[in-house]
Amino acid sequence: MNSIDLNSDIGESFGVWRKGNDDEILQIVTSANVACGFHAGDPRTMRETIRRCKDRGVGIGAHPGFKDLEGFGRFEIYGMEIDDLKSLVLYQIGALQCLARREAAEVGHFKLHGALSNMASRDRELAEGVLSAIVEADLRLPVFATASTELQRAAEAVGVECVAEVFADRAYEDDGTLVPRSDAAAMILDPRICAENVLRIAESGVVVSRNGVKVPVDARTVCVHGDTDEAVAIAAAVRARLENAGIAVSRPDRCLGGQASFS
Amino acid sequence: MNSIDLNSDIGESFGVWRKGNDDEILQIVTSANVACGFHAGDPRTMRETIRRCKDRGVGIGAHPGFKDLEGFGRFEIYGMEIDDLKSLVLYQIGALQCLARREAAEVGHFKLHGALSNMASRDRELAEGVLSAIVEADLRLPVFATASTELQRAAEAVGVECVAEVFADRAYEDDGTLVPRSDAAAMILDPRICAENVLRIAESGVVVSRNGVKVPVDARTVCVHGDTDEAVAIAAAVRARLENAGIAVSRPDRCLGGQASFS
Amino acid sequence: MNSIDLNSDIGESFGVWRKGNDDEILQIVTSANVACGFHAGDPRTMRETIRRCKDRGVGIGAHPGFKDLEGFGRFEIYGMEIDDLKSLVLYQIGALQCLARREAAEVGHFKLHGALSNMASRDRELAEGVLSAIVEADLRLPVFATASTELQRAAEAVGVECVAEVFADRAYEDDGTLVPRSDAAAMILDPRICAENVLRIAESGVVVSRNGVKVPVDARTVCVHGDTDEAVAIAAAVRARLENAGIAVSRPDRCLGGQASFS
Amino acid sequence: MNSIDLNSDIGESFGVWRKGNDDEILQIVTSANVACGFHAGDPRTMRETIRRCKDRGVGIGAHPGFKDLEGFGRFEIYGMEIDDLKSLVLYQIGALQCLARREAAEVGHFKLHGALSNMASRDRELAEGVLSAIVEADLRLPVFATASTELQRAAEAVGVECVAEVFADRAYEDDGTLVPRSDAAAMILDPRICAENVLRIAESGVVVSRNGVKVPVDARTVCVHGDTDEAVAIAAAVRARLENAGIAVSRPDRCLGGQASFS
Repeated sequence: MNSIDLNSDIGESFGVWRKGNDDEILQIVTSANVACGFHAGDPRTMRETIRRCKDRGVGIGAHPGFKDLEGFGRFEIYGMEIDDLKSLVLYQIGALQCLARREAAEVGHFKLHGALSNMASRDRELAEGVLSAIVEADLRLPVFATASTELQRAAEAVGVECVAEVFADRAYEDDGTLVPRSDAAAMILDPRICAENVLRIAESGVVVSRNGVKVPVDARTVCVHGDTDEAVAIAAAVRARLENAGIAVSRPDRCLGGQASFS
Repeated sequence: MNSIDLNSDIGESFGVWRKGNDDEILQIVTSANVACGFHAGDPRTMRETIRRCKDRGVGIGAHPGFKDLEGFGRFEIYGMEIDDLKSLVLYQIGALQCLARREAAEVGHFKLHGALSNMASRDRELAEGVLSAIVEADLRLPVFATASTELQRAAEAVGVECVAEVFADRAYEDDGTLVPRSDAAAMILDPRICAENVLRIAESGVVVSRNGVKVPVDARTVCVHGDTDEAVAIAAAVRARLENAGIAVSRPDRCLGGQASFS
Repeated sequence: MNSIDLNSDIGESFGVWRKGNDDEILQIVTSANVACGFHAGDPRTMRETIRRCKDRGVGIGAHPGFKDLEGFGRFEIYGMEIDDLKSLVLYQIGALQCLARREAAEVGHFKLHGALSNMASRDRELAEGVLSAIVEADLRLPVFATASTELQRAAEAVGVECVAEVFADRAYEDDGTLVPRSDAAAMILDPRICAENVLRIAESGVVVSRNGVKVPVDARTVCVHGDTDEAVAIAAAVRARLENAGIAVSRPDRCLGGQASFS
Repeated sequence: MNSIDLNSDIGESFGVWRKGNDDEILQIVTSANVACGFHAGDPRTMRETIRRCKDRGVGIGAHPGFKDLEGFGRFEIYGMEIDDLKSLVLYQIGALQCLARREAAEVGHFKLHGALSNMASRDRELAEGVLSAIVEADLRLPVFATASTELQRAAEAVGVECVAEVFADRAYEDDGTLVPRSDAAAMILDPRICAENVLRIAESGVVVSRNGVKVPVDARTVCVHGDTDEAVAIAAAVRARLENAGIAVSRPDRCLGGQASFS
């Protein structure tokens, strides 16, 4: 592999409330996951965010979440029928697509947000349900999914293109899953270490677990955060390290190894 | 003219709350304006409504309104920038379009709801703003607009196809505008009179004002209501009267006089 | 025991959407649980509902739920801190109290709604948390809690007056818990059987389980529903049967066996 | 007059979104207007804000606004019945009162927010309606109202205690009304000038209009802002100037000239 994508969640402001360092993070990443109004974002913010992405050539992705502004889509909600989750996801993707049309831009991928992502990563039935909505609506949008999750496996089963994702700032277990946040070792805060880890993934396709085990991981995108100054610093360090090592940072649909279905 | 469209607002339930007689009204009308989640409707309701329309061959239109569930989009909201109103309308249309894709259906028109419609009918600048969003997003959706309003005139100015609309159950002034609701004579409650009035419009292109003046009106669709049993009875009477007189009731994109741009 | 309370959830309309047969059910019950705007209800509906209760001498209770209009408070939401659940409950109770002041009425009890009730019935920590908010705010409101649940036990532990509740239309297991809704035998639909069961509870303090076991239950209120015509019929049958047998139907704060702390 | 109150709007965060410099402004002001969940604030934020006010001895006021998170309560909404506006205001005040009870604190005043305040300042009928709700609910809460507005006059007519308010950073017309924001001279940005103006009001009971006319104004509180660093600097300058001149900065219910009805 000689290129990799960097992605970040943006457009997470709402009304008068600002959140994140979108202008800074958009100078670093190549793909952006744009909040669609249910957990954050509003039509105005979405439109402005699309425009910023387009101005910088950053790939635009829909970032649908639960309808939960107060909890920012982070509360797990049980009891919704899978068919309704499908409609919830399509509604948000469609809203972003239409706003993108006005900017002569296109939505090129999607990524589930927060609790909806966590639930789909664990629950194969839910994951297949949501992804089959994409197929049924003939959207041909790849999904960004954490590597080694039920969501990734569901994408393969359902026939949705999956861009496997790793995290720059998270420690890994020997089986390729993330060290849970409840563990003190879950987060990696040193930008230099984050950058080295990502470089290793991009160059060798392996992540070194916290026990020192080399675990193969077929990642095509790296998630970085932009909600704190430290997060932006990590993102910048990751990009610089990759480029210094001759790895191209580019959108999955423009990567050398990008699949035909992306065009 | 030997054909005319009948349209009605539907899909106005929300969560557990039901509203309207959608199943009955869908047997009468040829076009439906579907609530898009801001003043009524939710992703589930929208999807089910699309399916019902498709099953009956009823044309599907987006019915965007202000974000105001509690007031059902009927409160006039002042202070929003026109650019944000554009985004508000595109967001809702796009959401419905994407849900329609899953049903292999298409959104074929749009109509503004409630207070947003009233404001756009009076305010040329607002009307041109909202309609220009349709052009900018290259949506090619005709707008259903009350005849003789600023919204109709704006559509012509901006280049959005306009399907002029009259009301089956409203009295008219000599200048072709509606008798305001505050006037006791505003509403026509007798199904037979409603039906005769609509027939005259369809056959002769004139509406007879409350003072007996014949006013030319170039209407291609008639709005009927479905939120009460009486309203359904009026709608049924209108349809029966038209058909008995040999007037075809059909969608504007399928009318004999339909314009090429509809296809 | 020679008196018992009948309670029902009311005020569950929202904006233009109607729900329930409040006028009919208020002629039957002696206590009402009023939706407080988070899962149903709005300030106008709440105020009108308070007035109706007062007109009929029906006890007014707050009925707080999750902030979830679209799901009517029926989705279980995980991830909220217990301290925030306390604030969520107090917010809603306070809102109703202030609207009641305008009607010179008083909020006399509270009952958790839907998923929040289900979670508190199972989860002792959550139940004690929410109930301790009532103590901390010095509200002295009794809670209506399903008999034999963690919520009932938590009330005793925390020092909140508990009015134990049974259901007129539900079958019971041998240990006094409800037959789960997933079981075909969960619901009792015959008004006559419902009425007999309630009479037995009121007269003998026992419920007969679906296996025929007599289980002691110290219930002071019976929950009846008003969201369908059948539900109203059951409620009416229960009331008539009790009165025919000489059991007074009255509010817990007015029952002969009512505790002093209610006054 | 030898004492005056300083007030500011606080608690305007929502969910994960932060707004304002509450910690800093609470070291300067003596009264706080706390958002109640409709235009900003949520139960958690409200509770934390109450606690901070109590810790610093700052007077707690309810700050009800239109139900409009996306517009932050700044859009003017037309069509609500006055009776419903009463319920809207009481709902929010009651919610805050109940959360305050948990902190053993009390709500001591209220101030309308944003568009609701603007409309009540212009519209006597609306102002009297909203204020009469306070009387009907027997709340005995004084209202903070901009001096020389219909809201101030309505308070007198209806019998609600009014604490007349001036703005530290706004220019005045010869008749005591504010220079509208559309005028370039509306805002005073120099902290020193703001401070001098407030001192003159406190010492002499006059405001000097932009034409140099001395207009009598019977203000008992001064509104300062905390949403920008500059705004905090102005607030601090105002407080320092007053104290240097021997004017006590204290809550209206603790002012030497405070009226008995406040206790």
